[in-house]
Amino acid sequence: MIVVMGVDSKNEEIEAVKNKLENVGFKTHLIYGVERIVIGAVGDKRFLPSLSLELMAGVKKIVHIMNPYKLVSKEVKEETIIKVGSATIGGKNLTVIAGPCAVESEDQLMAAARLVKASGATLLRGGAFKPRSSPYSFQGLQEEGLKILKIASHEYDLPIVTEVMNTKTVDLVAEYADVLQIGARNMQNFDLLKEVGHIKKPVIIKRGLCATLEEWLMAAEYVMSEGNYEVILCERGIRTFETATRNTLDLSIIPLIKETSHLPVIVDPSHATGNWKLVAPMAKGSLAVGAHGLMIEVHPNPNEALCDGNQSLTPENFHVLMGDLTKIHNLFH
Amino acid sequence: MIVVMGVDSKNEEIEAVKNKLENVGFKTHLIYGVERIVIGAVGDKRFLPSLSLELMAGVKKIVHIMNPYKLVSKEVKEETIIKVGSATIGGKNLTVIAGPCAVESEDQLMAAARLVKASGATLLRGGAFKPRSSPYSFQGLQEEGLKILKIASHEYDLPIVTEVMNTKTVDLVAEYADVLQIGARNMQNFDLLKEVGHIKKPVIIKRGLCATLEEWLMAAEYVMSEGNYEVILCERGIRTFETATRNTLDLSIIPLIKETSHLPVIVDPSHATGNWKLVAPMAKGSLAVGAHGLMIEVHPNPNEALCDGNQSLTPENFHVLMGDLTKIHNLFH
Amino acid sequence: MIVVMGVDSKNEEIEAVKNKLENVGFKTHLIYGVERIVIGAVGDKRFLPSLSLELMAGVKKIVHIMNPYKLVSKEVKEETIIKVGSATIGGKNLTVIAGPCAVESEDQLMAAARLVKASGATLLRGGAFKPRSSPYSFQGLQEEGLKILKIASHEYDLPIVTEVMNTKTVDLVAEYADVLQIGARNMQNFDLLKEVGHIKKPVIIKRGLCATLEEWLMAAEYVMSEGNYEVILCERGIRTFETATRNTLDLSIIPLIKETSHLPVIVDPSHATGNWKLVAPMAKGSLAVGAHGLMIEVHPNPNEALCDGNQSLTPENFHVLMGDLTKIHNLFH
Amino acid sequence: MIVVMGVDSKNEEIEAVKNKLENVGFKTHLIYGVERIVIGAVGDKRFLPSLSLELMAGVKKIVHIMNPYKLVSKEVKEETIIKVGSATIGGKNLTVIAGPCAVESEDQLMAAARLVKASGATLLRGGAFKPRSSPYSFQGLQEEGLKILKIASHEYDLPIVTEVMNTKTVDLVAEYADVLQIGARNMQNFDLLKEVGHIKKPVIIKRGLCATLEEWLMAAEYVMSEGNYEVILCERGIRTFETATRNTLDLSIIPLIKETSHLPVIVDPSHATGNWKLVAPMAKGSLAVGAHGLMIEVHPNPNEALCDGNQSLTPENFHVLMGDLTKIHNLFH
Repeated sequence: MIVVMGVDSKNEEIEAVKNKLENVGFKTHLIYGVERIVIGAVGDKRFLPSLSLELMAGVKKIVHIMNPYKLVSKEVKEETIIKVGSATIGGKNLTVIAGPCAVESEDQLMAAARLVKASGATLLRGGAFKPRSSPYSFQGLQEEGLKILKIASHEYDLPIVTEVMNTKTVDLVAEYADVLQIGARNMQNFDLLKEVGHIKKPVIIKRGLCATLEEWLMAAEYVMSEGNYEVILCERGIRTFETATRNTLDLSIIPLIKETSHLPVIVDPSHATGNWKLVAPMAKGSLAVGAHGLMIEVHPNPNEALCDGNQSLTPENFHVLMGDLTKIHNLFH
Repeated sequence: MIVVMGVDSKNEEIEAVKNKLENVGFKTHLIYGVERIVIGAVGDKRFLPSLSLELMAGVKKIVHIMNPYKLVSKEVKEETIIKVGSATIGGKNLTVIAGPCAVESEDQLMAAARLVKASGATLLRGGAFKPRSSPYSFQGLQEEGLKILKIASHEYDLPIVTEVMNTKTVDLVAEYADVLQIGARNMQNFDLLKEVGHIKKPVIIKRGLCATLEEWLMAAEYVMSEGNYEVILCERGIRTFETATRNTLDLSIIPLIKETSHLPVIVDPSHATGNWKLVAPMAKGSLAVGAHGLMIEVHPNPNEALCDGNQSLTPENFHVLMGDLTKIHNLFH
Repeated sequence: MIVVMGVDSKNEEIEAVKNKLENVGFKTHLIYGVERIVIGAVGDKRFLPSLSLELMAGVKKIVHIMNPYKLVSKEVKEETIIKVGSATIGGKNLTVIAGPCAVESEDQLMAAARLVKASGATLLRGGAFKPRSSPYSFQGLQEEGLKILKIASHEYDLPIVTEVMNTKTVDLVAEYADVLQIGARNMQNFDLLKEVGHIKKPVIIKRGLCATLEEWLMAAEYVMSEGNYEVILCERGIRTFETATRNTLDLSIIPLIKETSHLPVIVDPSHATGNWKLVAPMAKGSLAVGAHGLMIEVHPNPNEALCDGNQSLTPENFHVLMGDLTKIHNLFH
Repeated sequence: MIVVMGVDSKNEEIEAVKNKLENVGFKTHLIYGVERIVIGAVGDKRFLPSLSLELMAGVKKIVHIMNPYKLVSKEVKEETIIKVGSATIGGKNLTVIAGPCAVESEDQLMAAARLVKASGATLLRGGAFKPRSSPYSFQGLQEEGLKILKIASHEYDLPIVTEVMNTKTVDLVAEYADVLQIGARNMQNFDLLKEVGHIKKPVIIKRGLCATLEEWLMAAEYVMSEGNYEVILCERGIRTFETATRNTLDLSIIPLIKETSHLPVIVDPSHATGNWKLVAPMAKGSLAVGAHGLMIEVHPNPNEALCDGNQSLTPENFHVLMGDLTKIHNLFH
C-alpha cells in the first residue's frame, strides 16, 4: 500500500500514519519527493480491519499495489480444468453449452437436447428458475423443469447447466444439475455465492452487467474461499451507453482474464447481443480471442419461445455455426 | 405496441403479423408510409407471452409505447405517504435516516443513536448483515446486531432501517427492523423482492449501480405485486466512466421519479460519493432537487470505523449539516 | 511515480528500471515487499518523453502519484475571479447566463435579452455557429448571428457568451463575443484549445460527454498553457447507460472541482436534461452543491424554437426560477 | 414519427398536434388505445425544422421510426469498395494498416515501413499531427512528418494514412496523405467533417469514445453530404466503467454495421486496449466477427517510442500475427 501525503505535512502527521500502519503489522518506508511525501507500507492487508487512513491529517490519497484476490489468481495456479460427466472444461477443450433459454415442456427440451447433441454441443442448458425483469412474465417451470432437464441429460449424455436464484433452493438445484449457474444479476449476491461454495459441483459465474474484472474475480474468490474450486467465468456483455446492441460484449476481457487467472472463461453471445443475427459472428470472435467455450441459446422453434426467442438460434443455424467454431478452434489448437 | 415493417413487405407478411397480434387479443391499425409500414397494436401486453415478433418476415423493429409497470405509476395514485413509528416518509415531510455503516457494538450504536437523534434524524440506520465485496472483510454482527438496533430504537424512539440480504433471513430481519432495506447489489434479486413483498413493513429499494429508472421501478413493482405497497426508492449513485468519485450520484432522476411515480424517493450521498467531504454538498443538493429525504452515514468516531469510515460524517459535521438541510427544506415547503 | 515489479524480478531487471529512471533525472527508492518490489521515483515527469516502462522485464504496473496538470490546480492559486463587462464570475458572485439555444432573428434575440435581463441574468447566451448532430439541421446564422448578439449586448448591457467551433473562426468570434464557449464535443479539439489560449477573452469549457475530471482539467490546462488564464468550467451532463434523461448531470463533480482547482465552475441543466421540466430543480440543486452559476436556455416562445425548444424555459418560468435561485444563493453567502 | 398522447387528451389538443404536423407536409393517422392515443405521422422529417411537439398539451412522448441518416444506409447501396494506390479496402479484401503511433524520424519510419510491408501490411500509418491529452507531451513532427511519410510511401509502395486535426490544415495534410484520418476526439468536430467532405481522398472516421452507432454514422453522413463518398469506419473502443482495459473494444458493433451500412469497417485494437499483449487476440477476434481490416501500431523498437510504446507490436510479433490473420481471413473467404 502507498500512502501519499502533502509535502507540507507535519512530522507528527507522518509519524501518526506510520504508527497506525506499524501497529497492525506493516513495515513502512518513507520517500520525500518534490511535491509529495510517500509512505510505502509492506504487509498483507486482506485480513486487516479498515484503517480509514484517508481521514488522517496530511493524507492525500491511498494507492493499493496488491490485488484483493488470491485464490483465483494465476500466481497460485497455472490452469484449472474441470471434468463434469462426459465434458471437460478448460485447457485446450472446446466447450459449447447449448439449449433453450427456458425449459418449457418435455417435448421442447428433448427436441433441443437431441439437436444440439447432434451438432456437437458438450453440455445442455435450460432455465427452470427464470430471473425476469417483470413480475408478470413467465417465471419458469421450477422443480418440474429440473426433472425434465434430468431426463434429457440421461437420454443424450449431456451434463446439465442451470441457474440457481436464491439461497433457499441451492440444495434442490444441486440435486439435479451438473453445473450451477449464478446469473449476472446475482453476481454480487454474496450469500448465494457462499452457499454454492459449499456444494461439490462446478459453478458458472456470469459477469454482472456493470461488474469490473476485479469484482467478478472477487465473486469467484467468494465461492473458492468456501472450498469450491471449480469455478467457470462467463462473459455476457456489460452495460454501456450504446443502445444499438442490448449489451456490449467485452471480448477484450477474455485474454486479460487468461493473463490474470487460472479459471476457464466462456462467452454467452446470446444474452449479450439479444439478437440472433449477431450470435454467430460473436461466437466466432469469442474463440478467436481465446475463450475456452461458449454458451448459446438454441430453440427448436424460436418464434414460439416463451422467452428470448429473438436471441435464439434455430437448430439449422446452430449446426452451421458449430462447423465454423470447430474450424476456428482447430486453427489455434 | 408499434410494429415497423419494410415498405416492400409482402401482403402475406403483413397479414401474418396482424394475425399473430389479433390472436392474442390486440386490435391492429395499419399505416403506410413512404419508407416504412407501421402496424399499431392496441391492447395490454403485460400478461401476454413473448410474441417474438422481431423474428417474423418483414419486421424491422418493435417499439413499445406503454411502460411495463403499473402499480408504481403516478397514473394509479398521486402520492404515497408512509408512517412508521414516530416517522412519516413522503409528502412534505423531511426524512433523515442516519447512523453508522455497520453495527459494531452496543456502545458504538447507542452513541450514534443518541447523537443523530439530538441533531434531528428521524430514523436510525445500521447494518447487521453487511454485503462486502471481499470475503475477507467484516461481514457484520448478524442477529446480535439486530438486537442492538432494537435496544437503541427503544431508547431513542427512532425506527430502525437495516438491510436484508437473502431469502432465508427475511423473517428474522423483519422481526427486529421497522423498515427493510434492499441493497443496490440485490436490486434485481427477484426472489428476495418477492419475499419482502409478503412482509407487512416498509421496504427501501436502493437503485442498482447500473439500473435504469425503468428497472428500478420494476423492482418496486415486484414488491408491490406481492401485496406490499409501502416502498421507498433510494438513489445511491450509478456506475459511470468517472473514477474521481466512487459513483455518479444521479440527482436528475429525482424530479423525474416525482413525475413518474407516487413513491417517496430519498438519496444516500454517503455510498454514492464514498467521500465525507462531498456528503454535505450532495445532501443539500438532494433536497434542492426535490428528494423526500436522505440516508446519511454518521459514526461517533469515523477513523475507527470497521467499514466505510471515509464516507462517514462526524457527529459535529452531521449536526451542522442538519441545520443547513432544515433551511433548504423550509425554503420550499 | 511508483513502478511495481514482481517479487521474483532479477537484480539486473531492477537495475535496468532504476537506470532508465535515473538517466532522465529521477531519484529512485527501492522497497522490498512480500509479494512485490516497489521502486519509488521522485521527479517531475510532465516534460519527459514517454519511458515505456511497462515494457521492461519484471515490471507489473506503473502508478502515477502526481496529477498531470499544474496551472489549473488549487495548489497554484486559491481562487480565480473573472470580470467581464458588467459581470463578475467566480467567488461569491451568482452568475446566470441565459438566452436561446440559437440566435434566430434580431426580434427573437432582443426579446430574449430584454426578458432575461429583467429577471436578473448576468450574461446573454445565443448560438451563432451551431454544432448539430445532423448535417440536415439548422446550422446557425453565423456572422449575422454574431452581429445580432452585439446589438442586444449593447442594448441591455449584457456581456455575450457564444460558441466557437473551429480554428478558422476564432478571430471572427472573438471580435464580437465577450466570452468564448468551447462545446462539449470540442473539449478535446486540442488545436482549438490552443487557439483560444491566444485570445484575451475568457473561455468557457464545457465538459465532454465522456470526459473524466482529469481530462476536463487538462483541456483547461491546454488553454492556460498558451497564456489565457481566464477559464470557466461548465458541467453539462455525461453519457451513461440511463436513457430516461438525455445525459446524467454529474453534480458531485462540482464540490470536487472546488477542492481541486481554483477555476470557477458553472452548470448547464438545459443541455444535460434535454427537458425543461427538469431544468428548474437541477438549477436549484446546482447552487445547493456549490456551483458558481448557471447557463440556462430561455426562449421567448419555446414551441417555435429552431433548436432545442423542449429544453428551453419560457420567460415566465425563468423569472420564477430566478427568484428561487436568489433565495438559495442568499442562504449560503 | 409516432406522437403518443394521454387517453384523456382533449379533442382540441389532438387537433392541434395533427394540424402542426399537417402544416409541414405530414399525413397523420389516429389510433385510440386503452391507455394512450397514438398519432402516426408519415413524411420525411430530415429537412424539417424542429417542431417542439413534446411541448404541446397532451403529448407524452415522441417516437422516431426512421433513422436520421440516409447516404450511409444499406438501403441506398449494397457495398462500398475503395481503391487507393496499391490497396483495396472493403468487400472481400483484407486491409491491414500498420506503422508507428507517431513519425519520429526518417530512420524510424523507413524501418517501420520496410518491416510492415515485408509482413504483408497494405497501408502505412504514422502520425504527423498528434492529439495529446497533455499540452506538455510530444505533439508530432507536423509538416516534416508528412514529408517523411511521403518518402516511405514511395519507397515501399504503401499508401499513407495520417490524421488531420483541424480545419486549417486539411489542405496541407491532403497534399501528402492518401487517406485522411479523423481521430476519435474529433468525431463530432462537425466543421472538420464538412471540410474533409470537400477533399477527393478517402477518409477514415474513428468512433468517438462515447459515440453511439447512430452518431458515428451521422459523422459519416456529414462527410458524404458534402460529396465525399469514400468513408471508412474504424472502431477503436468505447469508454465504460471497466478500467482493467483502457477502453472496451465493441466488436459486436461490427456485424451490426454490416447489416446497417454499405461502408467498410475496420478495427484499431492498439488504441482500444492500450496493451500490446491484447492486440493480437483482439485483431484475430476482429476478423472473426467480420471486420474488413485492421489498423495496428508497429514500432521498430517499442521501448524507445515517443508515444504509446506500450501498445505497439514489435516487428516480430506483427509478423507472427499477420500469419494468423491470413489464416482466419482465408477460413471465411
